Amino acid sequence: MRIYADNAATTRMSQTAIQAMLPYFDRVYGNPSSLHSAGQEAMEALTSARERVAKVLGATAREIYFTSGGSEADNQAIRTAAILGKRKGKTHIISTAFEHHAVLHTLKKLEKEGFTVTYLDVHETGLITAGQVAEAITPETCLVTVMYANNEIGTIQPIREIGAVCRKAGVLFHTDAVQAVGHIPVNVDADNIDLLSLSAHKFHGPKGVGVLYARRGIVLQNLIEGGAQERGKRPGTENLAGIMGMTAALEEAVQDLDKTMPRLRDLRDRLIAGLAKIPHSALNGDATQRLPGNVNFCFEGIEGESLLLLLDDKGVCASSGSACTSGSLDPSHVLLAIGRPHEVAHGSLRLTLDRDTTEEEVDAIIRAVDEVVTYLRGMSPVWRDLMLGKRQFVID
Amino acid sequence: MRIYADNAATTRMSQTAIQAMLPYFDRVYGNPSSLHSAGQEAMEALTSARERVAKVLGATAREIYFTSGGSEADNQAIRTAAILGKRKGKTHIISTAFEHHAVLHTLKKLEKEGFTVTYLDVHETGLITAGQVAEAITPETCLVTVMYANNEIGTIQPIREIGAVCRKAGVLFHTDAVQAVGHIPVNVDADNIDLLSLSAHKFHGPKGVGVLYARRGIVLQNLIEGGAQERGKRPGTENLAGIMGMTAALEEAVQDLDKTMPRLRDLRDRLIAGLAKIPHSALNGDATQRLPGNVNFCFEGIEGESLLLLLDDKGVCASSGSACTSGSLDPSHVLLAIGRPHEVAHGSLRLTLDRDTTEEEVDAIIRAVDEVVTYLRGMSPVWRDLMLGKRQFVID
Repeated sequence: MRIYADNAATTRMSQTAIQAMLPYFDRVYGNPSSLHSAGQEAMEALTSARERVAKVLGATAREIYFTSGGSEADNQAIRTAAILGKRKGKTHIISTAFEHHAVLHTLKKLEKEGFTVTYLDVHETGLITAGQVAEAITPETCLVTVMYANNEIGTIQPIREIGAVCRKAGVLFHTDAVQAVGHIPVNVDADNIDLLSLSAHKFHGPKGVGVLYARRGIVLQNLIEGGAQERGKRPGTENLAGIMGMTAALEEAVQDLDKTMPRLRDLRDRLIAGLAKIPHSALNGDATQRLPGNVNFCFEGIEGESLLLLLDDKGVCASSGSACTSGSLDPSHVLLAIGRPHEVAHGSLRLTLDRDTTEEEVDAIIRAVDEVVTYLRGMSPVWRDLMLGKRQFVID
Repeated sequence: MRIYADNAATTRMSQTAIQAMLPYFDRVYGNPSSLHSAGQEAMEALTSARERVAKVLGATAREIYFTSGGSEADNQAIRTAAILGKRKGKTHIISTAFEHHAVLHTLKKLEKEGFTVTYLDVHETGLITAGQVAEAITPETCLVTVMYANNEIGTIQPIREIGAVCRKAGVLFHTDAVQAVGHIPVNVDADNIDLLSLSAHKFHGPKGVGVLYARRGIVLQNLIEGGAQERGKRPGTENLAGIMGMTAALEEAVQDLDKTMPRLRDLRDRLIAGLAKIPHSALNGDATQRLPGNVNFCFEGIEGESLLLLLDDKGVCASSGSACTSGSLDPSHVLLAIGRPHEVAHGSLRLTLDRDTTEEEVDAIIRAVDEVVTYLRGMSPVWRDLMLGKRQFVID
């Protein structure tokens, strides 16, 4: 038996999404740019997908650009704002210390090119405030980029309020909504968002496809040069099957949010309550302002990788943080940003549930984590020192 | 009945490729970067795909980078060579006038950034020579980029000889092999290629996935910043299903090349012979140094778009040139590059066959084109003027 509790890394594709893709492999397989009927059939599908995605996000079809995923969309959004800003002499960007690396590494590159970036401090709850953004804005600010929900600890930022601050100041506002879309309600209009990135495989759609929403009037700058696809802003033959799968997955994910969110929150809180009983454990990030399916814990005296491998042996697929950085030995930059010391940040566990997760699975996860933590602590010299009082507990 | 003769624009996915993708939607769906077993299963598949693609191309697995398609691969290859060149003070690039727009538009952008580009003249056969490249190389040259086979007229360039010239001069050599791979033998080692781009959907694989081959020692420069995927050079969760579909399609395409190439060449030559009987028609590009499935004709006194639409009515899907620029009213830059005057370049017809095309279909295409050309000429004032001698024929 396997319990997949790593849905923030990626999700299993839904049958609806798979079925939506299949016709576009060998039946409607024309190139949407071709004039003949095979191409026009494909173009009609593409046009309808764009309208359907726009409707879900509260956008218009012209504001939807299909990309190869969230990372590309993040890069293009930030590059666009930077280039447009620079033309007006504005080279200051505001972000946070716990963004996804697709954002952080793009910002680092821009810093080398002469931009100044303010990384807002994140409160230990894993939240920033619109007030922090307002205070940081200067006449030189060309972009505020703040993720909708954090990919490791799931905390949901006050996007609508931040958007309002940016709107008032006339500063472009981008949000990496890769973890949010399909999981909580997101509406670019109500939320005052100018640029938004999303990725299909985070909501049971296919890998390799995403969306960059750009509010009307924002002239996107190309990452890729070439043909006239996506109004010339994202050349390359459109991944039509992927786009159709993403569109179906998106509609499916949002249509039952009213029901799935409370159900998932109950499961999440059950999991949090169960893990909190393990001594010297702590939830990372705010307990309520977080994604319905996200649980992230630190366990004192535990090394994260061992925890994951032993959980995997027990059939539980979990992660210590972002999959994108799993090869790295550094502790999570997110946990450091919310003030966890290095030694504790190393022992984090992220469990991300989805709409198919059951109560039985949650209870099985609690048992498995409890057993593995107990086992690992029994072997840990750090834990022995803690128990002997030779070392101070960080987590009470 | 529909005859699909636009395989240079895109192809119908093969059943082999579709079947190769399916397990990766809802069975092996982990994120290859995840440490748990669901992730490691995915990573094993990714690793094997990389080895299989490398084997087909004559490369090693470490030299294969998966991208979202040919355009992205072209952009990254050229950007890489430009950045590496600039560091050494080398800012001269050699290319041709009839590259794909993913190459040409990237070069145009580099020109604005201070690079100098020599666009080699293309002979009326649609070919350039290694000698032209040798003559154009200067001590400042950092890159030669020449497409393997042209996407409109299918002419196959002397890549091996050009590669040898570049190797000798110590200049990086990139080839856009999007139209070649899977259609004719391509081997990066034998062909002296340093950087190569390919796209899966041109050989019956899925859209939205491609490869950038980069010879060992070439430090790729990122178009996209983010996670550690593809050795940090191409961040974003890997499109594993797409990669598996591409890999299967590639192996399938190359395994029977010995049989499909001669068969396709026969069909191609039958089609060329049939169309050549239409008065005042001319084949574009060399008759033999061209892709086995490519036919490209000009018909005097004909407007390309009308030709396509009427052919479509008769069930024949064809194109006037590149699908990527089909929205444009400009004549093909490829046909202009081989010396066709504007008025003739406007009347071009590209028919691209694939391994499923039959002799009956070829004969039906010939009949349909003959009928449509005759019909259109009957209504054309240009044709009337030509017939009345008020205007000179360009094509005898």
